[in-house]
Amino acid sequence: MGGLNPDAVGATGGPTEKSWDSKDALLYALGVGAGTLDPVNQELEFTTENSKDVQQKVLPTFAVIAGMGGGSLRHAGEINFTMLVHGEQGIELHKPIPVEGTAVITDKIIGIYDKGSGGVVETEAEGVDKATGDKLFTTRFSAFIRGAGGFGGDRGPSGKRNQPPERKPDHEVTYQTREDQALLYRLSGDRNPLHSDPKFAEAAGFPKPILHGLCTYGFTGRALLHSLCGSDPDRFLSMDARFSSPVMPGDALTVRMWVDGNEAIFQTVTQNDTVVIDAGLCRFK
Amino acid sequence: MGGLNPDAVGATGGPTEKSWDSKDALLYALGVGAGTLDPVNQELEFTTENSKDVQQKVLPTFAVIAGMGGGSLRHAGEINFTMLVHGEQGIELHKPIPVEGTAVITDKIIGIYDKGSGGVVETEAEGVDKATGDKLFTTRFSAFIRGAGGFGGDRGPSGKRNQPPERKPDHEVTYQTREDQALLYRLSGDRNPLHSDPKFAEAAGFPKPILHGLCTYGFTGRALLHSLCGSDPDRFLSMDARFSSPVMPGDALTVRMWVDGNEAIFQTVTQNDTVVIDAGLCRFK
Repeated sequence: MGGLNPDAVGATGGPTEKSWDSKDALLYALGVGAGTLDPVNQELEFTTENSKDVQQKVLPTFAVIAGMGGGSLRHAGEINFTMLVHGEQGIELHKPIPVEGTAVITDKIIGIYDKGSGGVVETEAEGVDKATGDKLFTTRFSAFIRGAGGFGGDRGPSGKRNQPPERKPDHEVTYQTREDQALLYRLSGDRNPLHSDPKFAEAAGFPKPILHGLCTYGFTGRALLHSLCGSDPDRFLSMDARFSSPVMPGDALTVRMWVDGNEAIFQTVTQNDTVVIDAGLCRFK
Repeated sequence: MGGLNPDAVGATGGPTEKSWDSKDALLYALGVGAGTLDPVNQELEFTTENSKDVQQKVLPTFAVIAGMGGGSLRHAGEINFTMLVHGEQGIELHKPIPVEGTAVITDKIIGIYDKGSGGVVETEAEGVDKATGDKLFTTRFSAFIRGAGGFGGDRGPSGKRNQPPERKPDHEVTYQTREDQALLYRLSGDRNPLHSDPKFAEAAGFPKPILHGLCTYGFTGRALLHSLCGSDPDRFLSMDARFSSPVMPGDALTVRMWVDGNEAIFQTVTQNDTVVIDAGLCRFK
């Protein structure tokens, strides 16, 4: 009958290699909106490589680009990829991502759950710096596959996590995305026409191409980096988030943060107060 | 004593090779503002490679990127590159630029002039498609070198060319550039910090980094392409322009066109009506 195979938990993928260079890091930074902040923080360290007294750095969320690969998902059973929705994304930085390098990626399936209306597959990938052998990052990816539930599997962890407390946010940052934001973001690798082709988007039931969830993730990561880490990637430890609603290019994104010690719960909302990222948790030092 | 050597006219450079691919063409198109037009012309053919019923095409002004190389300028004498200003730029398209390819570039010095306050060096480059042997484009580049005049050379062609007639423009198109326009454009190759580093720009006497002249050229070329050629690169034959004033990222650019048969005189002005490109001539079919 096909469908998801709950016995695939533990199946592995890789090692594969993913290389990037300074230009890839700059292009990614521009794709998630860097470079238009106020004069106090122009993000020159993320958008230029040759500014005086500025050393190029890499945005922590670039881990989702540098961590592409692995491929354990193919062991999860028969997946209709047109029914796949990006559910959750986590990154954990073990050290700042170098401006250029090659990561050796291995990944594994860490969960397959039956949510009734759909199935969920969770994978975890690890990226090791090929040059030094150092562990660079761990990423977690959760896919919700519509229509792939009902196979009698475990429902998985439930209950609300990382919910904002009943008080005003400690930090709130608003970034404007642009009409052509997805056209720029896609040059970092995800060429799914859902994000660029009006006809394809219409066929998928959207009025126009939607923004990449990981682009929203990148904007959100910038807000966390600047508000919680003094713009220093070395202080950014981890970021977990759940995608709760699509974002349209041109939407404004407001990131709300509630700080508790070295952690912050966050959510991202649009100008209509639609929550597009929830259950967010950022750890920093 | 150094300085320009008028006997260098005729000196050649190259052959060198310049390769590009689909992503380079997409990145360039976004760098010159493509992708934010109205729903009638979303420029999908220039900003995407996989939209339904759309075939990727290359903006004609990409010739300034694909035509980089040659190198005859080094024979012109001793040039202080910090004193060099982009004076004029011309492109002539012999056929539409392919989405990916390699051009074999040869160039030569076609003029060295003494303007008193400075010297002018003009070079002309030819790009041949390495795969087919077809001539793709001819580009002309004129550099004004401040302080390099007074060597007793020919003043060169004078007199005003391509001046607008005394009537309203036949077409007028306004495009908004962005605060971070130069940060994106520079990823197409020109990493001069004058366009990205506030400290460098300040030392050069500007309040902030200025836009690349060739970025303004690309915005202007889009206006010409859409207004005069029905957005079809195959109908775009040539474009000559003189840079008359710097543009700041964030400026609005209005391109005014006066059509006469298969030619149009054009100029580009900012929101303050400062003429930033003048003496423009576009030929089309």
